Amino acid sequence: MNPERILDHARRRIEDRLRKSLPGRGSAPGVIVRAMRYSVLGRGKRIRPLITVESCRACGGMVSQALGAACAIEFVHTYSLIHDDLPAMDDDDTRRGRPTSHKVFGEAIAILAGDALLTRAFEVVAHGLEPDTACAVTAEIAAAAGAEGMVGGQALDLGYARGNGRARLINRVNLQKTARLFEASAKVGALCAGAGTGKSNALARFGRSLGLAFQIVDDVIDGGGYAEAFGRSRARDDARDLAGKALQELAVFGRRAATLEAIAEGVLERMR
Amino acid sequence: MNPERILDHARRRIEDRLRKSLPGRGSAPGVIVRAMRYSVLGRGKRIRPLITVESCRACGGMVSQALGAACAIEFVHTYSLIHDDLPAMDDDDTRRGRPTSHKVFGEAIAILAGDALLTRAFEVVAHGLEPDTACAVTAEIAAAAGAEGMVGGQALDLGYARGNGRARLINRVNLQKTARLFEASAKVGALCAGAGTGKSNALARFGRSLGLAFQIVDDVIDGGGYAEAFGRSRARDDARDLAGKALQELAVFGRRAATLEAIAEGVLERMR
Repeated sequence: MNPERILDHARRRIEDRLRKSLPGRGSAPGVIVRAMRYSVLGRGKRIRPLITVESCRACGGMVSQALGAACAIEFVHTYSLIHDDLPAMDDDDTRRGRPTSHKVFGEAIAILAGDALLTRAFEVVAHGLEPDTACAVTAEIAAAAGAEGMVGGQALDLGYARGNGRARLINRVNLQKTARLFEASAKVGALCAGAGTGKSNALARFGRSLGLAFQIVDDVIDGGGYAEAFGRSRARDDARDLAGKALQELAVFGRRAATLEAIAEGVLERMR
Repeated sequence: MNPERILDHARRRIEDRLRKSLPGRGSAPGVIVRAMRYSVLGRGKRIRPLITVESCRACGGMVSQALGAACAIEFVHTYSLIHDDLPAMDDDDTRRGRPTSHKVFGEAIAILAGDALLTRAFEVVAHGLEPDTACAVTAEIAAAAGAEGMVGGQALDLGYARGNGRARLINRVNLQKTARLFEASAKVGALCAGAGTGKSNALARFGRSLGLAFQIVDDVIDGGGYAEAFGRSRARDDARDLAGKALQELAVFGRRAATLEAIAEGVLERMR
């Protein structure tokens, strides 16, 4: 099978598991369940959970071993989008071509749906993995998502949006706000496969570089952030360099990393 | 030692561990660290973490075994206060006699500080406990805090604040929004001690009844919620009955539960 077909298959399994990992109707107030489902079951590319399951496979594991952790990471990503879109933050009306959560459900429910998804992420890990792995995965996801990671990156982002040293801060923001969770996505896949430190660290570096490339590509497409600070042409070059750096980390995995290579190439393709 | 002195000692150990479990200055953007510390190191009664460590001791465990889980529960409680106080939710200007987080740091940072505390809670559990216990504790805290628990309770609370069936819904709100985390606080203490199902369930029922009593006492003091819906006199009686029910669950623990008894009596004393 070619990498694209394997990824399509993995994406379907992720979608299925995401659906099953959300609270069922009737188990919680309807509006919260609807808000959680609305944002998770939207039109996400699922790039982070794909990185998780394919990193697990690159280390010799099976997709099923990493599905719970992959869903947890997508829940964390989705909660961060809901909260970042809030009027008090980036104040966005649309996301993935649809009205943002707070536009549909109101601010209070959007905040709560985000909180519930973040909570659910850790619940899924605690239930879905062998205890030693679950603890390592929880620690990695929490470190990537918390004050030292994504949340801290968003705080910095709000700061430089007010105009202080935009170019200087932007790399740090991209690292914490985007690349850190990509790094965790890859590393967690390795943890689920029971991989050793060498492979696990190589995948972490793959994830970090790819995450930086991903964010720059996003900025090239919408003209903001990195592209605005450094110019579109340099941004394109930097994205290519970073994706290239990410690909180099995959060399040790040989043909097992074909799908991760396809994911990295897909990131650059969006720029064309 | 009398129960009050033991509780004072436990409270100091909890304060110390809370301080150490927060991100250090320099590890994350200063404003986020300050906002996390501001809310956690305020003037909380620490009733939930005290229930956790004393439940652990009632089951024959040591305070040290439960401190990590106790801090996690206080972090979850604190995050819920920060988010509940937001303009989009209850819109409160003061909390524990001080300005609320969003009044001091702005809405965006208040949302992020809450997110970071919730994330930190699970990180502390993953690092501080033996893996089997950590998974059980994570599952219990997440179930209590998420859409089926506290977050769902807050959603219901926002609903009835708009005026629909106040008296009918209030018990369900109190159960999900307050009592469920009290239940988890006690049960998690039992889990940290490695207690069997019998003791663990007895403590869970103790926590649930005490949590309901606690919320009603709160409402008696400020004249809202339960006291408003059912009248102050009935509210006082119901709080006493529920605390009595909680105390009955402690019988099987004998003298080991003296501090939990003192906690329950302390809840009623606030009403006098």
